[in-house]
Amino acid sequence: MLARIEQLNPKLNAYITVAAELALAQAKTGESELFAPRGRKGHHDRGPLHGIPISLKDNIYTKGFRTTAGSRILKDFTPRHDAEVVVLLKEAGAVILGKTNMHEFAYGVTSNNPHFGPVHNPYDLARIPGGSSGGSAAAVAAGLCYGSIGTDTGGSIRIPASLCGIIGLKPSWGRISCEGIIPLSPAFDCAGPLARTVGDAAILTGVLYSRVGREPNMARSSTLRSAPGKFSLGVPRQLFFDALSPEVRNAFDAALRDLCRAGMTTKDISITLLDETEDAGNHIAWVDAALYHQQQGYFPARSAEYGDDVRSRLEMGSKVPAVDYLRALEIQKQFFQQLHLALAESDVDAIVFPSTAIEAPLLNQETIRIGAHEYPARALLLRHNRPANLAGVPAVSVPCGFTRLGLPIGLQFMASVSSEPVLLRIAKIFERTQPQYRRPPV
Amino acid sequence: MLARIEQLNPKLNAYITVAAELALAQAKTGESELFAPRGRKGHHDRGPLHGIPISLKDNIYTKGFRTTAGSRILKDFTPRHDAEVVVLLKEAGAVILGKTNMHEFAYGVTSNNPHFGPVHNPYDLARIPGGSSGGSAAAVAAGLCYGSIGTDTGGSIRIPASLCGIIGLKPSWGRISCEGIIPLSPAFDCAGPLARTVGDAAILTGVLYSRVGREPNMARSSTLRSAPGKFSLGVPRQLFFDALSPEVRNAFDAALRDLCRAGMTTKDISITLLDETEDAGNHIAWVDAALYHQQQGYFPARSAEYGDDVRSRLEMGSKVPAVDYLRALEIQKQFFQQLHLALAESDVDAIVFPSTAIEAPLLNQETIRIGAHEYPARALLLRHNRPANLAGVPAVSVPCGFTRLGLPIGLQFMASVSSEPVLLRIAKIFERTQPQYRRPPV
Repeated sequence: MLARIEQLNPKLNAYITVAAELALAQAKTGESELFAPRGRKGHHDRGPLHGIPISLKDNIYTKGFRTTAGSRILKDFTPRHDAEVVVLLKEAGAVILGKTNMHEFAYGVTSNNPHFGPVHNPYDLARIPGGSSGGSAAAVAAGLCYGSIGTDTGGSIRIPASLCGIIGLKPSWGRISCEGIIPLSPAFDCAGPLARTVGDAAILTGVLYSRVGREPNMARSSTLRSAPGKFSLGVPRQLFFDALSPEVRNAFDAALRDLCRAGMTTKDISITLLDETEDAGNHIAWVDAALYHQQQGYFPARSAEYGDDVRSRLEMGSKVPAVDYLRALEIQKQFFQQLHLALAESDVDAIVFPSTAIEAPLLNQETIRIGAHEYPARALLLRHNRPANLAGVPAVSVPCGFTRLGLPIGLQFMASVSSEPVLLRIAKIFERTQPQYRRPPV
Repeated sequence: MLARIEQLNPKLNAYITVAAELALAQAKTGESELFAPRGRKGHHDRGPLHGIPISLKDNIYTKGFRTTAGSRILKDFTPRHDAEVVVLLKEAGAVILGKTNMHEFAYGVTSNNPHFGPVHNPYDLARIPGGSSGGSAAAVAAGLCYGSIGTDTGGSIRIPASLCGIIGLKPSWGRISCEGIIPLSPAFDCAGPLARTVGDAAILTGVLYSRVGREPNMARSSTLRSAPGKFSLGVPRQLFFDALSPEVRNAFDAALRDLCRAGMTTKDISITLLDETEDAGNHIAWVDAALYHQQQGYFPARSAEYGDDVRSRLEMGSKVPAVDYLRALEIQKQFFQQLHLALAESDVDAIVFPSTAIEAPLLNQETIRIGAHEYPARALLLRHNRPANLAGVPAVSVPCGFTRLGLPIGLQFMASVSSEPVLLRIAKIFERTQPQYRRPPV
């Protein structure tokens, strides 16, 4: 892995910090634990993550080496403790290779980082990997780690997973500890895994879940291999389908046919307030972010040290009227209820839709033409992803093919709070209908 | 009472609606219940409020007659049910004389009502009674009822009580139901009594408290007459004493001497964050008010129907940034903790300070000169009163003398959540040190 990083990271710029020595020491310890004779002192099998090299998005505290959040403001910040998720991963034997590049302070969807350079999509170096966990996704896709932990506030795990052809799971809000993770919007922030297969994602999720409550056994592949579920899926044609790139639309239609062939049923459903999740999500997240940066003394005191896009979002967030913020909180509550009502009344296990409305844009592409209309690329990447954050429900993005140019396309499943095991089973069943993972041509 | 209202209300403008027929019918029922022979069918002694004529601020729902909130927008609004507090008062046998004039939508401290005319202070008709419960205070002071129920969001019970020389109690937040009361800021709104004596205030408080939890026996005068309490009082010289009219300052010093002669001890205390309660209280209340009026469809749709002052406050509230609102909520939490910490660490039962920094201003007086400075009258009336609302703690204003011109001056006691019984005992002890109540010269 370290050799691959050395070879490919100059092209991808996926890592900000590679902790080679620490990783080798961890690997050595893991090896001696595992290969000490069973029953003898020193033997310790920590389970499926034992010895597996993974990476962490650089907004996750790592004791003893820097955690920059992709920012100039924190470029020399070294935490005194590991984030809760890092403690869990280390206990499970994972080897931490390093910290991945990201959108500055996780506040954007391109991962065009002005301080550490842009991350490149491994399927086309001229394109973005998506963000904000773009370094994690690029590293996983290109084989610079076996999995990564990212964060998702408005799609920051699922968007890069979709654009880089890998799996990304955003868990139920509050289910995985965000202690020791630099926040964007505490109302929405979730840590979660990016991985090359649903099985790998399930192993990582199981480890991250292990401390809180009953472990849902997601890490056991037996759960995922159980009888081909007769799952019922809802398709919310509303919102998600009025602006889609033609190739994403075709891939989605094909994916629905694959799901049906695998024994699932699909039906159209409508969800009240879905169209309002965009504004409501913005109003809450913008305000949360501005407040955090103000309270830290970063903004506006150190405005000049931000990239232009993040600075202007913080300015915008400082001005959102409280009445709009409070209305957004009200919509959040109502949408949570309406979504769960729609799932129950339609009797569907999950809803399914394209992870992003478009394939990966070029590095500096601001707008995308679909039919006669020109759309902001940022909005097309975000709009399918905010609803899960607003409602606090889990969602997973799974690869569902490639465009003619060879760019990955993602399929997203979203379900009620705490239904991660169901989502992973559905994702696994779908994954089996698709061609095997193929490494990007980087 | 009805005769006195007929005689004096044209001067005071304290009532918006007098429900003479209903009141007479209630009185008749009360009379027959009370005078039916004891032990016979029909006999019912409802306690100390039985047959007592009281009034209600006109933002409190009354089934079958109008509840205007002092506004043009609601001038013809007739509720279909009584507010929870009205149900309790009626069960206790109170006779509802009518609805008192108030600052429009309770959003101001003068009670200069642009739709129903200004309320006049019974001690000087050229002056305001204070607000927003100005009609209640004027009616109680002038003997147009034996007590009244007002509401207090930033001092709206205590300010007019202070300026009209009566007792006003703002209870602990949430202790008395606000169901059926038109809100100003639900974060702070409290209903509470205005009365001519501490004993009367205690009776009304006991009735309003009777439904929730254990009744604290405040209505029993025996409680109030118990041993001269060795109460300890804190004097927060901070904030409350940097701008005081000379006559208020003298009256306060004399009141401290009276309290000490009655067996109490006083000491200076400092309370962290007290100076920040003004901005924090404003940011929360302004936003709450703007949101409510927006959600009701009143603002901005019917802007022209508001008085200039209320309209401009709603405009201001619509623009408060969410980051300021959230910081205010944080200060609210911290101030609550700091206040209770200061009370505990100083080992004081309550804190004591002037109810308002000034005596009653003239009807259209915008500013007040104290020493070399000119202050907005509104700020001088509000600043001593907001802290209790921000912390949600009870506070009571008690008369403590008159200026040379014969204008009443108020003394305020404030203590920890749920300490109403202690506050009323202290107020009662102080009341006994003062000359007997004298009716205003109206």
